[in-house]
Amino acid sequence: MSKTMKDRQFRPVAVPDVELGGFWGKWQDAVCQSTAETLLDRCVEAGMVRAIDVSQPSPGIVIPIQPWGGTTQMFWDSDLGKSIETIAYSLYRRPNPDLEARADRIIDMYEKLQDKDGYLNAWFQRVQPDHRWKNLRDHHELYCAGHLIEAAVAYYQATGKRKLLDIMCRFADYMITVFGHGEGQIPGYCGHEEIELALVKLARVTGEKKYLDLSKFFIDERGTEPHFFTEEARRDGRDPANFIQKTYEYGQAHQPVREQKKVVGHAVRAMYLYSGMADIATEYKDDSLTAALEALWDDLTTKQMYITGGIGPAASNEGFTDYYDLPNDTAYAETCASVGLVFWASRMLGRGPDRRYADVMEQALYNGALPGLAIDGKAFFYDNPLESAGKHHRWKWHHCPCCPPNIARLVTSIGSYMYAVAEDEVAVHLYGESTARMKLADGTRVELRQMTNYPWEGAVAFTAKPERPARFALSLRIPEWAKGASLSVNGARLDLSASVIDGYARIEREWADGDRIELDLPLELRPQYANPKVRQDAGRVALMRGPLVYCVEATDNGEDLNAIVLPRNLPAAGTTVLEDLNGAVAIDLAVEREDAQNWGKPLYRDEPAGRRPHKARFVPYHLWDNRAPGEMLVWMQVDR
Amino acid sequence: MSKTMKDRQFRPVAVPDVELGGFWGKWQDAVCQSTAETLLDRCVEAGMVRAIDVSQPSPGIVIPIQPWGGTTQMFWDSDLGKSIETIAYSLYRRPNPDLEARADRIIDMYEKLQDKDGYLNAWFQRVQPDHRWKNLRDHHELYCAGHLIEAAVAYYQATGKRKLLDIMCRFADYMITVFGHGEGQIPGYCGHEEIELALVKLARVTGEKKYLDLSKFFIDERGTEPHFFTEEARRDGRDPANFIQKTYEYGQAHQPVREQKKVVGHAVRAMYLYSGMADIATEYKDDSLTAALEALWDDLTTKQMYITGGIGPAASNEGFTDYYDLPNDTAYAETCASVGLVFWASRMLGRGPDRRYADVMEQALYNGALPGLAIDGKAFFYDNPLESAGKHHRWKWHHCPCCPPNIARLVTSIGSYMYAVAEDEVAVHLYGESTARMKLADGTRVELRQMTNYPWEGAVAFTAKPERPARFALSLRIPEWAKGASLSVNGARLDLSASVIDGYARIEREWADGDRIELDLPLELRPQYANPKVRQDAGRVALMRGPLVYCVEATDNGEDLNAIVLPRNLPAAGTTVLEDLNGAVAIDLAVEREDAQNWGKPLYRDEPAGRRPHKARFVPYHLWDNRAPGEMLVWMQVDR
Repeated sequence: MSKTMKDRQFRPVAVPDVELGGFWGKWQDAVCQSTAETLLDRCVEAGMVRAIDVSQPSPGIVIPIQPWGGTTQMFWDSDLGKSIETIAYSLYRRPNPDLEARADRIIDMYEKLQDKDGYLNAWFQRVQPDHRWKNLRDHHELYCAGHLIEAAVAYYQATGKRKLLDIMCRFADYMITVFGHGEGQIPGYCGHEEIELALVKLARVTGEKKYLDLSKFFIDERGTEPHFFTEEARRDGRDPANFIQKTYEYGQAHQPVREQKKVVGHAVRAMYLYSGMADIATEYKDDSLTAALEALWDDLTTKQMYITGGIGPAASNEGFTDYYDLPNDTAYAETCASVGLVFWASRMLGRGPDRRYADVMEQALYNGALPGLAIDGKAFFYDNPLESAGKHHRWKWHHCPCCPPNIARLVTSIGSYMYAVAEDEVAVHLYGESTARMKLADGTRVELRQMTNYPWEGAVAFTAKPERPARFALSLRIPEWAKGASLSVNGARLDLSASVIDGYARIEREWADGDRIELDLPLELRPQYANPKVRQDAGRVALMRGPLVYCVEATDNGEDLNAIVLPRNLPAAGTTVLEDLNGAVAIDLAVEREDAQNWGKPLYRDEPAGRRPHKARFVPYHLWDNRAPGEMLVWMQVDR
Repeated sequence: MSKTMKDRQFRPVAVPDVELGGFWGKWQDAVCQSTAETLLDRCVEAGMVRAIDVSQPSPGIVIPIQPWGGTTQMFWDSDLGKSIETIAYSLYRRPNPDLEARADRIIDMYEKLQDKDGYLNAWFQRVQPDHRWKNLRDHHELYCAGHLIEAAVAYYQATGKRKLLDIMCRFADYMITVFGHGEGQIPGYCGHEEIELALVKLARVTGEKKYLDLSKFFIDERGTEPHFFTEEARRDGRDPANFIQKTYEYGQAHQPVREQKKVVGHAVRAMYLYSGMADIATEYKDDSLTAALEALWDDLTTKQMYITGGIGPAASNEGFTDYYDLPNDTAYAETCASVGLVFWASRMLGRGPDRRYADVMEQALYNGALPGLAIDGKAFFYDNPLESAGKHHRWKWHHCPCCPPNIARLVTSIGSYMYAVAEDEVAVHLYGESTARMKLADGTRVELRQMTNYPWEGAVAFTAKPERPARFALSLRIPEWAKGASLSVNGARLDLSASVIDGYARIEREWADGDRIELDLPLELRPQYANPKVRQDAGRVALMRGPLVYCVEATDNGEDLNAIVLPRNLPAAGTTVLEDLNGAVAIDLAVEREDAQNWGKPLYRDEPAGRRPHKARFVPYHLWDNRAPGEMLVWMQVDR
């Protein structure tokens, strides 16, 4: 157990209690104005809504069964769930009666679809009713349930409407009877984790501990022997060895979770599992889970994570390969996986603020997850390479449309990742123009207003507005990269070296209306080098400014971006505000460029290329491919 | 038409007329002692021999029909053909009555299998007899015929036995009736080229021009409109648009061949086509074909070729992608494709010696084709990456076993690529310990003995042994890389600047028994840089010595080869002869190495890695993965 171990229980502030402006306000506007509706339109076009409408005949198998034994159609409920969740968050920001009415109609359909016993799943009620609970390893039933639960909680919080929440409580109550070690019960868990974290949300909003207990059951059972997936396959008449993913590592079910030390398998599954584990660790103050999670965190962030917070380099298993294997041009780095890393990191803060988690949360949020959405909210990246020869572009949709609603729900709920509250403590994990309303343990309401142009500028000012003067601790993250950060309260400078604990400046005092905190985070341009074991980044440098990874694009720099060479010592950088990229700060740097024009005819020769001066423009990686399409590069050549 | 255009007609010396020692002798021994027999054993195990045995029932579809509409089983005849061809060459070097008897039995089976009309194809006689000539685009019928023709020629030359040659003449005679623009004839050609070059071999050994004419017909028809593949699909009731390869570029049938300027599609197909075109250009002195070939040659060698002479970077089409797209770790660079490039280059020498072709022939031979064979002759590379993280190893066999017999037949027939003869001229294209017997136009027999430890050492000595004093030109290639080469005849130094034409030292004189030529090719270590447009080689250097590309392997240098950094100016190199690698010359160089040990825990940091001195050992690329398995790297980091 590390020294940073905490015994507090922080919970995120509810989405409707944080109002965003500035950077995140613009992204939320894009989702509210375009993505939320687009998601529902695409779900309708794909046949998902028709599929749950019991007044229509069964859709049958619209998308063929794939070699892994299922079809993406099996998890249409999850796509609808995440879309409803996005709509819920969007309605809070931007009322949209038409969209709300469409969501209500879908919820009505789910009400009619639900079985008397509480079971609910479009595929296993309407297409393969005889397969219910037959193949938890591959069939995503509990995964779908989890996403509908998350939708239910969000829709209830945003609209006050309980119908979907009640539906999902009935389903969860039914699950409690189905799963367990009792006579006739299933001692199993889902191949694709998600239900675990969803049940925690359900427990928190309903106050029902039974849902926590079911979540904990799924986590405790995972990977134990005799192995459930093996027994289940035998019961179902399948050969357990005939598993296309070959190893239970694919779904992190190869070992009991508390024994797992290496991050393996399908990246999204891993992140969802660890998120659920972290929630249960917080809720039960379960040190054995926290210890496993700390080992896994180290494993991921020191051996398997792109500088963008992208994870899971391989398309073959949508997941992890070998340590330090981080190919840039073929990076899978699924948007959903970085969204999942944000989930996990956020939940690692449940037992107390620690920038070890929050810094990575921010890194993955800005650079791993956010690239998944175009600035107009209308197109999406599924995979996120760190280098493109010019052919990688956002999709209007995807045959497996998991990423669009995932990034959309994250963007619209970002406020709940920024602020968290424990009994007598408020933590600010992320910076951005916003106003948060919170309630302390003694019932005191506190409003915290954050004024900033972050991440473009590093000055952040807060004004506190407790309903009456109140003593509590305010913990503000000081990112590890923010060398020379400074902090003052009502004009008086604080000694950060004395007040920073686990990377957070902790200010415990009586706060009164109008108290003002000023934080300055220097946004120096930072060259970043990779461990020499990362063969794909050898001889290369990436640039970061604040939390943002930068890249070069052909539209600013012409083709052959790999011919650009940065000097060992960076020259003074210029900055330009790009209005066509949401006011992003671009960086201009005098560098050199290898000369392909005067190279001559042979492909190979005895002398390296000559060089000419080049003024390179760098833009934030998350904004690439929002202008003219072309090459893109994060890791650049550097002289050393 | 370039200035190098020649009007001579060079033909390769027949395989049995060159006896190899030294470097190539060892490789031929490996094939004679292991590979030749292994090939036949594997063909038997795969069911290929049973498939042609009419005394047994039809094999049926042993390998399932693939999405492209066929199965590799469809071209089992080609695997048998190339295996018989290899056996033929091996018998000349090393008599093996058992192996010869096995080949004879296969040939007997083909005799029994052949239809009365001359048609011969295991699949379309025994498995799908109703599909004969129905889908030339996908079905490889003429491709199979081509390989059996090459086998027939080789077996006849090596053993004097005519049976297979007669069989294939009957088949070719039948083809002449089948293909053409006459009533009821097929105005088509094969999707996978090969028959074109095979018919030229058949014409040369039989003296029958009709086979040349058929070859020229296939070449002239290719890619013309109305498009044969489109018409054929319609006739066969298939939708021409439903072509899994999407474009006729896949088989170089997108344009008439004389209009083609860009090397596209499946790499092996392209090489076989261009080989056939070059043969026809030589035989017919067809300048329009030569002009197209020169453009294609430039296109390939200045924009699309690995430094190893590997070609076709992508697995998806087993072929070409975009200009300058040469990924190292995922390089497909099929062994067969480099074998094909050797074929093509060799045939570009048909109209006269030109090192523009012969240098690349040598480059592709040593570094693109030869890696396909283990030094013991018992294992094979199919694809040839220029970087491996440690998991790429030779196969004992492959589901598509085209490469093993292809490299084996090339190795055993290498003598015919070394020497060529025109009327009154002998050309030496490749160096290596050997004795060649040739006949000039006037009937004079000349024996040329080449004594050398090339490619390990650069000293090459020849003794001429004409049966009587004879005036002829001896053309010796001076490789472009051999700066400072020197040449003497009977001790008298020649002025190379005056006697070199198109990269060949042309010595025209009366040669007498015992005349001695001494050639010295300095084997300096040569750093090689890639055009800056090759993004994958940016900031990197490869080392060559003579014709050989070198690499580093983990077994000599430990893991993390990408951490090795070469200095801008190479220090003096040491050399070591490695007895366990066929006496290869290894290169030892004092370089630096980034230090992963003292890097610390984070994956990324503000400072580049420190460095420590490292003694790097480089071995010839073609010999990698012959010792302990592990990482391998060709393009290394370099300071500039």
